Amino acid sequence: MKRRWTVTNETDHGRTPATHGSRIDAYVDRYAARATGMVASEIRALFAVASRPEVVSLAGGMPYVTALPLDVVGELVADLVNRRGPEALQYGSGQGDPALREQICEVMRMEGIDAGADDVVVTVGSQQALDLITRIFVDPGDIVLAEGPSYVGALGTFSAYQAKVVHIAMDDQGLIPESLAQTIYALQASGQRIKFLYTIPTFQNPAGVTLNLVRRRQVLEICQKAGILVVEDNPYGMLGFDGEPLRALRADDPDGVVYLGSFSKTLAPGFRVGWALAPHAIRQKLVLAMESAVLSHSTFTQLAVGQYLATQPWREQIKTFRELYRERRDALLGALETLMPEGCTWTKPAGGFFVWMTLPEGLNSKAMLPQAVDKRVAFVPGTGFYADGSGSRHMRLSYCYPQPDRIREGVRRLAGVIEEELRTVEMFGTRSRGGHSGVDTPGPDLA
Amino acid sequence: MKRRWTVTNETDHGRTPATHGSRIDAYVDRYAARATGMVASEIRALFAVASRPEVVSLAGGMPYVTALPLDVVGELVADLVNRRGPEALQYGSGQGDPALREQICEVMRMEGIDAGADDVVVTVGSQQALDLITRIFVDPGDIVLAEGPSYVGALGTFSAYQAKVVHIAMDDQGLIPESLAQTIYALQASGQRIKFLYTIPTFQNPAGVTLNLVRRRQVLEICQKAGILVVEDNPYGMLGFDGEPLRALRADDPDGVVYLGSFSKTLAPGFRVGWALAPHAIRQKLVLAMESAVLSHSTFTQLAVGQYLATQPWREQIKTFRELYRERRDALLGALETLMPEGCTWTKPAGGFFVWMTLPEGLNSKAMLPQAVDKRVAFVPGTGFYADGSGSRHMRLSYCYPQPDRIREGVRRLAGVIEEELRTVEMFGTRSRGGHSGVDTPGPDLA
Repeated sequence: MKRRWTVTNETDHGRTPATHGSRIDAYVDRYAARATGMVASEIRALFAVASRPEVVSLAGGMPYVTALPLDVVGELVADLVNRRGPEALQYGSGQGDPALREQICEVMRMEGIDAGADDVVVTVGSQQALDLITRIFVDPGDIVLAEGPSYVGALGTFSAYQAKVVHIAMDDQGLIPESLAQTIYALQASGQRIKFLYTIPTFQNPAGVTLNLVRRRQVLEICQKAGILVVEDNPYGMLGFDGEPLRALRADDPDGVVYLGSFSKTLAPGFRVGWALAPHAIRQKLVLAMESAVLSHSTFTQLAVGQYLATQPWREQIKTFRELYRERRDALLGALETLMPEGCTWTKPAGGFFVWMTLPEGLNSKAMLPQAVDKRVAFVPGTGFYADGSGSRHMRLSYCYPQPDRIREGVRRLAGVIEEELRTVEMFGTRSRGGHSGVDTPGPDLA
Repeated sequence: MKRRWTVTNETDHGRTPATHGSRIDAYVDRYAARATGMVASEIRALFAVASRPEVVSLAGGMPYVTALPLDVVGELVADLVNRRGPEALQYGSGQGDPALREQICEVMRMEGIDAGADDVVVTVGSQQALDLITRIFVDPGDIVLAEGPSYVGALGTFSAYQAKVVHIAMDDQGLIPESLAQTIYALQASGQRIKFLYTIPTFQNPAGVTLNLVRRRQVLEICQKAGILVVEDNPYGMLGFDGEPLRALRADDPDGVVYLGSFSKTLAPGFRVGWALAPHAIRQKLVLAMESAVLSHSTFTQLAVGQYLATQPWREQIKTFRELYRERRDALLGALETLMPEGCTWTKPAGGFFVWMTLPEGLNSKAMLPQAVDKRVAFVPGTGFYADGSGSRHMRLSYCYPQPDRIREGVRRLAGVIEEELRTVEMFGTRSRGGHSGVDTPGPDLA
């Protein structure tokens, strides 16, 4: 793996304000209102440095695709071109390949979802599904509810459509129903328009926690009563370390939930195949929005995924991934337990890619990042996962990509940085840091 | 080729209003303002019928990918997975693969463009580049200038962002500079905000005409003076039937033109690889918009295109495509000359995929479509290519996909339909047709 963090390696955005030497932005007063917030975050430049091989990155959300049988995938794509080339290389339907949509329904059945292929739209990763759902529902100023913390890419999309994100508090059991109900009540009482609740109920990104079964029922009930659509984002649902996949929210409320799925973590992100399963009327608009956005997704990658599902033991492959990620989670949790200074706490994920760590009072994860990179370890500061500037005492640690030994070494380095920071704070008091503005979107490698 | 028009084959959108049996749209009052115009056009249902093999389709804009060396492409993608699998299957940069961006610059050099890879953004077809440019620049109510007629997919995107499209008149030499200047003057005098001129200067879709060299200079001058960005969409530029590719507008105005390109017509649309070349500040925003929309494009398809360009005689392949399409254009023009009734006129394209036909006064192409499909020939009615409801006397005929014999048979059938319609009009007077509302977007197959 040579190419990591390439987005920051090869470009200089993030380091350039509106003027860059002689490159003055002649269009600065012409952009749409939604584009004024489109500014690269300052941590991009740091991640460029963090891409050097000597840095242990606990930052990226890249799945470990090397665990795939690459020879088999190679044969499969060659076979696809030889047998169905003119179809695979042609434009396809805006809704997505019909056979693949059937297969997607079979995958979702493992989470208790009973759906027909006609209600599925194939998208360019589930990120695009998020974009299209927001495009369809959100006028500037509308409210989107989301867990706090929430997925950085979702916050970026909501911000691009000028939504106002209101965070719902969560704990080790996922988002807190009482907090959801109170927030909805307060917002509706003040006449604000809530467009949907965005939630990652299972192995959440970045918190690593899972909404328990009792709360799932409560969340659905609360949203049904308040007439609020639920957008259930579930990229990690199949990657649980204990037992069978959890029942999806969508399984119990077909009319009230839009479900987003992805093959990025169960197969490979390089195909960019995700999907949305939506109530019929919403699905119709999604297809039109899809066509307006990209005409149609790549037929080639859709058929490649379809071929893989049809001919390969994909359930076994998912088990392989689970074992791999479980071992890495154990390595991370074990090292944290052994090495982290007192006052640090963290979540214990039962699946997925991420651990959410809370630092002792007075520490600021974003302010620490340069030192950490200097000590050859990287993480994502917590502020990126909040739309409101909070999160500075948190950081996301991901265990999906590095080998267990590297993970342990990374934690050792990180513990050193935190200890040093604690000593500094003890001597000089709390480090302050300029106010956070806008959403940090550190690029696709941090998905 | 079994799969054609699949978008309409397998779904029923276009036939369902907001309520569909018991499927009432519970979300009807929740959508964003931009979504209210997202309604499937009524001609979709007809195109579903037109997808039957016995129908000669002069409607679709599908390139004839069967002319590609499929065995070579098969080997190439297998080789890609075997040699660079972990990279090809991983997330990539939001801006696009750096090596591919270099190769794109080499392709554009054939049109006189001198650009660096840092100013290129790889997109999901050039359709996505259009979507992102519109996202960055257009607030609801802003003006976008476009040729009349213009590409249906562009009009759909402008409409999705609630732009107001103002058409600029064109003739056989492309858009008319005087008309452009007058329109700009009138709009600016009345205080309206023009965001950009969208133009397909070469082998235009749907008109098949090309902006001549004198006018190219004039158009650039007018836009420079008025401070208006030019968006140059050039999917067909390499597919000219006579001599070398024309010099792109972008070649003479790097700061004032965003150039959109695509491999859909010179290689294959199934990879969905297009690009935007933009002035630096705009390119920065494009990358951020790209990441918010889809994180990154498929690394797999990007590397496949890069591998194809690096190892295959792609210039020779483009010549093969040119010869193929030239033969088909000749078949279409010859048949029109021989068979069309008096009063019909049409353009004579020197490249690309399309002929634009004007019917005798009193005829309405959209009203004729059902009869045409009944007689087993299909075309796209002219109204789809205007944002203002005009175009009813026109139709787009494409010669890219059917074999020459089939093209001639299609024209024979179409001439019969028009003749019959002329007799009807002579006997009963002009057929009237309900007002046109909104933009027809007949789906990706009509690209």
